[in-house]
Amino acid sequence: MNKLLIVGTVAFDAIETPFGKTDKILGGAATYIGISASFFNVKSAIVSVVGDDFPQEYLDLLTDRNIDISGIEVVKGGKTFFWSGLYHNDLNSRDTLVTELNVLADFQPKVPQDYKNAEIVMLGNLHPLVQSSVLDQMETKPKLVVLDTMNFWMDCALPELLDIIKRVDVITINDEEARQLSGEYSLVKAAAKIHEMGPKYVVIKKGEHGALLFHGKEIFFAPALPLEDVFDPTGAGDTFAGGFSGYITQSENVSFDNMKNAIIYGSNLASFCVEKFGTERMVDLDENEVVSRLKQFKSLTQFDIEL
Amino acid sequence: MNKLLIVGTVAFDAIETPFGKTDKILGGAATYIGISASFFNVKSAIVSVVGDDFPQEYLDLLTDRNIDISGIEVVKGGKTFFWSGLYHNDLNSRDTLVTELNVLADFQPKVPQDYKNAEIVMLGNLHPLVQSSVLDQMETKPKLVVLDTMNFWMDCALPELLDIIKRVDVITINDEEARQLSGEYSLVKAAAKIHEMGPKYVVIKKGEHGALLFHGKEIFFAPALPLEDVFDPTGAGDTFAGGFSGYITQSENVSFDNMKNAIIYGSNLASFCVEKFGTERMVDLDENEVVSRLKQFKSLTQFDIEL
Repeated sequence: MNKLLIVGTVAFDAIETPFGKTDKILGGAATYIGISASFFNVKSAIVSVVGDDFPQEYLDLLTDRNIDISGIEVVKGGKTFFWSGLYHNDLNSRDTLVTELNVLADFQPKVPQDYKNAEIVMLGNLHPLVQSSVLDQMETKPKLVVLDTMNFWMDCALPELLDIIKRVDVITINDEEARQLSGEYSLVKAAAKIHEMGPKYVVIKKGEHGALLFHGKEIFFAPALPLEDVFDPTGAGDTFAGGFSGYITQSENVSFDNMKNAIIYGSNLASFCVEKFGTERMVDLDENEVVSRLKQFKSLTQFDIEL
Repeated sequence: MNKLLIVGTVAFDAIETPFGKTDKILGGAATYIGISASFFNVKSAIVSVVGDDFPQEYLDLLTDRNIDISGIEVVKGGKTFFWSGLYHNDLNSRDTLVTELNVLADFQPKVPQDYKNAEIVMLGNLHPLVQSSVLDQMETKPKLVVLDTMNFWMDCALPELLDIIKRVDVITINDEEARQLSGEYSLVKAAAKIHEMGPKYVVIKKGEHGALLFHGKEIFFAPALPLEDVFDPTGAGDTFAGGFSGYITQSENVSFDNMKNAIIYGSNLASFCVEKFGTERMVDLDENEVVSRLKQFKSLTQFDIEL
């Protein structure tokens, strides 16, 4: 079984949407990535940090899904990273209400020995220096390194971000961030510029408008499944990244054609994530639902024109 | 060969985009629909009205594409409908600078006798009463009636619009208009409400984000082709409608599966329309380019997951 190494936040989130609000609940990029990747036949481990205020039940939730948490440092007397956000009526934009870095401020990631030869590395959204440090600790060159990041790091750690971008095979980024990073409005031109920064594959996430995969001149597009209601978009991008990297790890095939499938699997899992608050929908999702919705993706996009 | 009856404006447009501006050039919904449908093996006719200021060369351009223009009334001493618009930097929004109805104000459409038994009727954007009058003149029931409309008629002629919506099989409408017409933000819910107003098929156009086809619980999605540059979006929606109705007319197959293909053909033709000002790109487009881009649409969307 292939190994997937995940780095990213494990956190508390408090979310408010037009449909309701939560107290502090389980959140964090690595949490969503790990849960999403657990739908595939892979060995996975999370590298992250929490405080000793982090409930054992949340850690148990991850180990119950066969995620190795030996790389999650628990800081005695420390407080877990906390994020709070308010979504606007269209759910496409949000205000960050609170960001408490807490134990994340001084985080030195430690990759478990058993994962220093992981086939696939998924660098979830986090300080670029932390992402770089994880790559530095690998003892064998991974078959594929996937990077997710966001505009925050472009604003406050651009040189470090450009360093790590240079070292990865795939970058996943949203449309506005791709425009900011490249200085190009056209996503085709933006992807071309980001290719030049290093990654052979550029994935541009457009939220409810789907995701684009660029590889040189080749382009693939996966729509988001049209849903009656989007309840809470938190974690959708990370769930997408987890499905993408989990599928690639399981199949151990890093061809462009296989990445198309990975994009579809990622979009499929993300379509569940937004149906309830936080990780709620993902933790009670079963395999039959996943397959049934994959069939919906096929009928949504496949057509029969002979050329 | 099957017949396609088109009603809509034939007009002068003056367009300004971030890339340049035009004088009065050939425009109008029926013009774009007719040119787009001319890429299929169909007999087509346009019902419309112009003033005697309308250049013969524009009429010749239509007849050169085998479009029957006997239903285009030329009003002696009348002035042709004129629209002028300014696109913003993102090309997704525009301001209307001038709308001169001119001969359109008193337009009484007359369907040529030879087209009163047309298999397919494409009601382009125009006053709902004009669209209704065209349907009233049909002597045999068309196999399919397609309606395109816009928010303007929702604002100023809603009862008449709801009357014509009741009578058509397919409605094509953009996302904001679907939300306005239905009062629902979710496009899945909006389509369900519009179904209840009459049309069995609802096509929601999302511009650069593609188009959705709804038929009860069935949904199909066609992306817009990612382009390096969009030059001028004018007429893209009409070109889409012309490709859709032209393909349906040629194939004479009104099944949901065939409509998927029609949506792809429409999206394909629309992707060319936006590459130059007005109808410029469409009139010098050749069959090889159309087929080559259809192949791009296939590789953009087709994947190989066995379920």
